[in-house]
Amino acid sequence: MAQPVRKIINDPVYGFITIDHPVIFQVIAHPYYQRLRRIHQMAFAHLVYPGAVHTRLHHSLGAYHLMCNALQELRNKGIEISAEEELGAKVAILLHDVGHGPFSHALENVLIKGVKHEDISLRIIRILNKEMNGQLDLAISIFTNQYHKPFLYQLISGQLDVDRMDYLSRDSFFTGVSEGVIGYDRILKMLTVHEGELMVEEKGIFSIEKFLVARRLMYWQVYLHKAVLSAEKMLVKVLERARELILRGETVPGASAALDLFLQSKEEETPIDKYLTEFCLLDDFDVMASIKNWMFHPDPVLSTLCEGLIDRRLLKVKLQAEPFDQQWVTEQRNRICQLKGIQEEDCHYLLFTGEAVNTTYNPVEEKINILFKDGTVKDISQVDNALISQTLSSPVKKYYICYLK
Amino acid sequence: MAQPVRKIINDPVYGFITIDHPVIFQVIAHPYYQRLRRIHQMAFAHLVYPGAVHTRLHHSLGAYHLMCNALQELRNKGIEISAEEELGAKVAILLHDVGHGPFSHALENVLIKGVKHEDISLRIIRILNKEMNGQLDLAISIFTNQYHKPFLYQLISGQLDVDRMDYLSRDSFFTGVSEGVIGYDRILKMLTVHEGELMVEEKGIFSIEKFLVARRLMYWQVYLHKAVLSAEKMLVKVLERARELILRGETVPGASAALDLFLQSKEEETPIDKYLTEFCLLDDFDVMASIKNWMFHPDPVLSTLCEGLIDRRLLKVKLQAEPFDQQWVTEQRNRICQLKGIQEEDCHYLLFTGEAVNTTYNPVEEKINILFKDGTVKDISQVDNALISQTLSSPVKKYYICYLK
Amino acid sequence: MAQPVRKIINDPVYGFITIDHPVIFQVIAHPYYQRLRRIHQMAFAHLVYPGAVHTRLHHSLGAYHLMCNALQELRNKGIEISAEEELGAKVAILLHDVGHGPFSHALENVLIKGVKHEDISLRIIRILNKEMNGQLDLAISIFTNQYHKPFLYQLISGQLDVDRMDYLSRDSFFTGVSEGVIGYDRILKMLTVHEGELMVEEKGIFSIEKFLVARRLMYWQVYLHKAVLSAEKMLVKVLERARELILRGETVPGASAALDLFLQSKEEETPIDKYLTEFCLLDDFDVMASIKNWMFHPDPVLSTLCEGLIDRRLLKVKLQAEPFDQQWVTEQRNRICQLKGIQEEDCHYLLFTGEAVNTTYNPVEEKINILFKDGTVKDISQVDNALISQTLSSPVKKYYICYLK
Amino acid sequence: MAQPVRKIINDPVYGFITIDHPVIFQVIAHPYYQRLRRIHQMAFAHLVYPGAVHTRLHHSLGAYHLMCNALQELRNKGIEISAEEELGAKVAILLHDVGHGPFSHALENVLIKGVKHEDISLRIIRILNKEMNGQLDLAISIFTNQYHKPFLYQLISGQLDVDRMDYLSRDSFFTGVSEGVIGYDRILKMLTVHEGELMVEEKGIFSIEKFLVARRLMYWQVYLHKAVLSAEKMLVKVLERARELILRGETVPGASAALDLFLQSKEEETPIDKYLTEFCLLDDFDVMASIKNWMFHPDPVLSTLCEGLIDRRLLKVKLQAEPFDQQWVTEQRNRICQLKGIQEEDCHYLLFTGEAVNTTYNPVEEKINILFKDGTVKDISQVDNALISQTLSSPVKKYYICYLK
Repeated sequence: MAQPVRKIINDPVYGFITIDHPVIFQVIAHPYYQRLRRIHQMAFAHLVYPGAVHTRLHHSLGAYHLMCNALQELRNKGIEISAEEELGAKVAILLHDVGHGPFSHALENVLIKGVKHEDISLRIIRILNKEMNGQLDLAISIFTNQYHKPFLYQLISGQLDVDRMDYLSRDSFFTGVSEGVIGYDRILKMLTVHEGELMVEEKGIFSIEKFLVARRLMYWQVYLHKAVLSAEKMLVKVLERARELILRGETVPGASAALDLFLQSKEEETPIDKYLTEFCLLDDFDVMASIKNWMFHPDPVLSTLCEGLIDRRLLKVKLQAEPFDQQWVTEQRNRICQLKGIQEEDCHYLLFTGEAVNTTYNPVEEKINILFKDGTVKDISQVDNALISQTLSSPVKKYYICYLK
Repeated sequence: MAQPVRKIINDPVYGFITIDHPVIFQVIAHPYYQRLRRIHQMAFAHLVYPGAVHTRLHHSLGAYHLMCNALQELRNKGIEISAEEELGAKVAILLHDVGHGPFSHALENVLIKGVKHEDISLRIIRILNKEMNGQLDLAISIFTNQYHKPFLYQLISGQLDVDRMDYLSRDSFFTGVSEGVIGYDRILKMLTVHEGELMVEEKGIFSIEKFLVARRLMYWQVYLHKAVLSAEKMLVKVLERARELILRGETVPGASAALDLFLQSKEEETPIDKYLTEFCLLDDFDVMASIKNWMFHPDPVLSTLCEGLIDRRLLKVKLQAEPFDQQWVTEQRNRICQLKGIQEEDCHYLLFTGEAVNTTYNPVEEKINILFKDGTVKDISQVDNALISQTLSSPVKKYYICYLK
Repeated sequence: MAQPVRKIINDPVYGFITIDHPVIFQVIAHPYYQRLRRIHQMAFAHLVYPGAVHTRLHHSLGAYHLMCNALQELRNKGIEISAEEELGAKVAILLHDVGHGPFSHALENVLIKGVKHEDISLRIIRILNKEMNGQLDLAISIFTNQYHKPFLYQLISGQLDVDRMDYLSRDSFFTGVSEGVIGYDRILKMLTVHEGELMVEEKGIFSIEKFLVARRLMYWQVYLHKAVLSAEKMLVKVLERARELILRGETVPGASAALDLFLQSKEEETPIDKYLTEFCLLDDFDVMASIKNWMFHPDPVLSTLCEGLIDRRLLKVKLQAEPFDQQWVTEQRNRICQLKGIQEEDCHYLLFTGEAVNTTYNPVEEKINILFKDGTVKDISQVDNALISQTLSSPVKKYYICYLK
Repeated sequence: MAQPVRKIINDPVYGFITIDHPVIFQVIAHPYYQRLRRIHQMAFAHLVYPGAVHTRLHHSLGAYHLMCNALQELRNKGIEISAEEELGAKVAILLHDVGHGPFSHALENVLIKGVKHEDISLRIIRILNKEMNGQLDLAISIFTNQYHKPFLYQLISGQLDVDRMDYLSRDSFFTGVSEGVIGYDRILKMLTVHEGELMVEEKGIFSIEKFLVARRLMYWQVYLHKAVLSAEKMLVKVLERARELILRGETVPGASAALDLFLQSKEEETPIDKYLTEFCLLDDFDVMASIKNWMFHPDPVLSTLCEGLIDRRLLKVKLQAEPFDQQWVTEQRNRICQLKGIQEEDCHYLLFTGEAVNTTYNPVEEKINILFKDGTVKDISQVDNALISQTLSSPVKKYYICYLK
């Protein structure tokens, strides 16, 4: 079948996204890619930011668009990038998240155990590559950082990759948190390559500072918003509870056969290779439809959590710098057991604590290299009068508690 | 429980939406309102415009915001609006769409038969009113146009109501079709009241023209985009097929008990009063989860349609000014029967035709009154040198065919 | 002197404008081009729209940017454009307005008589071409529509040229009249070339309709806003009065020698070739500084007009569909003569009438060709169900009167 | 004369600015206020950012708009503000910059010596107050911080005043430096009053951090851009040179009588009270028209500088952390003397050095108080895990040199 030669897609964030290569068309048209349309990028953030209902598919198209621009800019600066490398990098970014399961990060390691989404992405890309007769070989080589031009990998997965640039831009756009906006177009124009590595030109320093501060703001204000935290932890508890009931021999029917497979699975580590086809059927709809059904489940723990998620009656959250007073926690726990008529051993579903940690910039793990006009290279935290100094390199830890009111 | 006094909600379209009345808080917190969070505003438009995943809840919050602004502007012009009327109008607009079922307009009259969504909205508002001890009485009076100040009703349902203003603004925002943008803020500033009726000041004429042209553009370019049309018609066919199979005695399990109730119902007209509780459980997730399951149904018609919707392999669409050549249609039909091995009587699910009609401005049904400085009132189509002339008042009809390739 | 290889310019309208050719650098750096920095794009529109202070230089950079995009889009569609043609078209658009005098259109034919700004542009381009050793030959050939690929000329001067697209976009941006916004990026993507002529693809029809409606709105709401009209006509009267006084032998010193030259010139037609060097020194600052000085001129007519312009005490304007009642006009005239103690023969500076004419779309003079998929070409006014119909092709005429209150 | 009751002004930054009080109308209509229309907000920044041609008038209207919103928000939080206080604060912010001379900060202390623009503002407000029969009494009391509610003064002149909020928003908007954008609307919503002082609610911390980082970015990237620095220093040198020549007895005619008065003035400190009427005639046009004339002045130093400014051939700038090598500076100086045939004593006009200093946040001078839910108040630099730490409180100093190439 003849593919269209060129297509433009409206994107409220960037205007238009252009697709002009048959391999890209084929990848996008594949059901495995289309599945991303049914996975929210920001899980339950829409409970606080009603606009944040954008999808993984939209994000990966956006990251692809930024990749197109980044490669164009680098070429304009004289960096050699062949047509094959261009295609490889574009396919790799399009598919970088194809291994995400329902509710993305929120459910990571809950539904599928012991396998990271990046690993699943790679497995799926390899399947597509086989179907497409090896046309994705170079994409795989870049995606796994085995290609001899590391900057291509760094554009996909690094401190200044187009993945982060898109999700920060897109998440701030759809949440309406305009303060999270980053100057992605200027950052792209400031990128350069030095000895094969991705760098930022000296005059881009302030844009990078702003990027890091925006990320910091988005983390605390949006991703870790108390109600968002509550909803996403409740989701985890729902699935854990469902699993526990199943182990106990109770019936907890998932809304689809595919979801049932993963729910019933008793292995410590999900045998993902065996279940890959089913995995590629899973999306937010299986999980949400199940939760809706479980509102009527006889187990009060399960039904309470599910009702709370559906009707937006979330567990109350406190977030503070110090651990919580144990006595107060115990009192709350007793209150809840009585209120719901449940055993103490089940109470941890309706009252639980945890820690959230975030570092504004970690110069050890992260590396944003600034290339100065005289050819020297410095990490952004080492630049004179840097905003991003040691103070910001130590992680900030906060303690949270979620509990039924 | 004490409600918060004041809350702001981030909205990418308008910046911030403010809620500052306990009754509004109560309405928004109600599960019946929260359900709108799980209904897409634009059904399957996101298959073409990936950003168009916003929800009915978001739309109704946006319309509420415009209502707040409109009432403020009118008051600034000396039009008297009491605090009770303000609250009534705000509640009425918040709840104007609460009776929408899954996939909104796309499924109207398919899942629920013989009852319009406005009627269901009214039924639900009445239930809420009972729960809230009559606090919504005035809202109901405005919503049903029985209140003695017709402009309040016209702000909710009229040619220049805040419902349209929001959905045009919001749909163009989320699709990224910037050309559909209307100057809602200027239109609001041009609104006035004359003898109890909503009017537009003379100097707002060009803004109204632009509003009508934007609506025209959105209709043909977005709402009636060929792929969107195809998907939404396929959705209808899926449900019709499911019903037919059920009538024939086959098993077609819906993903939820609530959906099953409506699927199995054999009445010509859905007994909505009887089923209202179940209706308030229905949303896009029930329907989508069912479709995902039905991809594996033994019936080739049902599974073909469901697979097509999920994997975005849509029926091909042609749209033209004349009816289609009957012979060509017959050939296509025969081809499809053979291809899928189905009976001719079942073929209408995979090949069907229809008509789409739209009028840019109908001065008979629609009425946009312009108030001139000298006190005279004219319909916008009667203004000198009007853009919106007779030519645009006759409906444009197009014929479409959807068929399996 | 080595030119920088590549430079990006921040533009609030388009983000970034890129310059990457030494000839473009040279043209932009030339004092004749830099002069455009000192000419307002919208003359006195900023008296009503305070943001509308953008310059001719900014507009021509913007039009250049759109030209870059348009050529790129056309190339992507397989239309052959050589590097030389690209450069020629870019230079031609950059310089298309270089012959504008102070206050652009407002003063056209007042300060410089009998020569159109396009002719002056051409003269200046030829001078630059000589200085640059013929590097602008092809630009001149395109600018004068002598090049064998007419679409290049049509991109500079036609119904859908990048000049209009930029000024509509830019003017609506800087005035804040968001309703004048056109979908320039989508229009650019819809452009194509058929038999050497610029056309619009069928699916771009709605965008073009919106473009014409936005232009119509900008004309009546902004360019012909009553206060803007008043200020710009007062400016003309100021210069006419200054000239008249000079002819009578009175001293009316211009703020610069260059301006004096043109003020004192008594020819019916300005000998522009002789005065070209001086012309290239003229800008809004010469005129405004003179007006500021003339506030203190002994002639009451001149000082009244100048004070009015500087202190924003504008002549009152009426705008209506019918000519003004002559008797009422006479009464006003008498009142003003008495008020200011001036002769009746001088009164026409402080009370004058005129006509403003605008056509939404003139299918005879204008030609926007739509290219259908089947290869047929139709003018947009001939398309089925066109918004742009005969009604809109007849000019709208309005009568105005400006007079001292 | 009857004033209109209500007027809306289009503003590309905020949409619409509303004026609805006769005193505000009178202030805006006054020639002293209208003069701000002829003073660029950002002096010569438009040489680098062509969109940055907005005016002081536009800025002060914008600040007025933010004041309207801020007062509204505070009232919604229960802070008492009377109608008189509201009017006073609005007038005070409208007029806060009315004492700015041509080219604002760039020429501060050059044309008018020994008087700060705030002092001139106050003098002018007092004149207006007299003309308006004391209606501005309360505005003056607030403006001079003598009113008993300090938060009103702090909204006009403090770390989070609406002046800064507007100029950062407006400057980033018109330059197109989107990274300078601050979330002014959210900051406004986070403001509160505690014991009469302006504070920020706890949850506004990240917005304030972003505000400070945006300011830092704007400072180094825009306000201190090398070419902007060069142009503005050249402007100072032009005026100093003109003065010196005048002192030597040479003729250096200003383009207006008002400018001449200030140029010829030989006092150490300008007797501003004596010259106030003339001051209120001065604007950018007097200065620019003079510079244009002086391009032809026989003095090579003056003409070189003037030509450079007009034709955008700026002195070259270097900016670095260490002082410049004296020997290299001497070599350059000698080269320039020879090149231009000027005395060494005149060379400092064409080669000069200086220092630029900026502090991201100075917790001693600046005070941004955060009000915590428990009622405690902390400076933003004292908050846990603050971005704005000690490191950022020490000023950053850079050395610059400007010299003729």
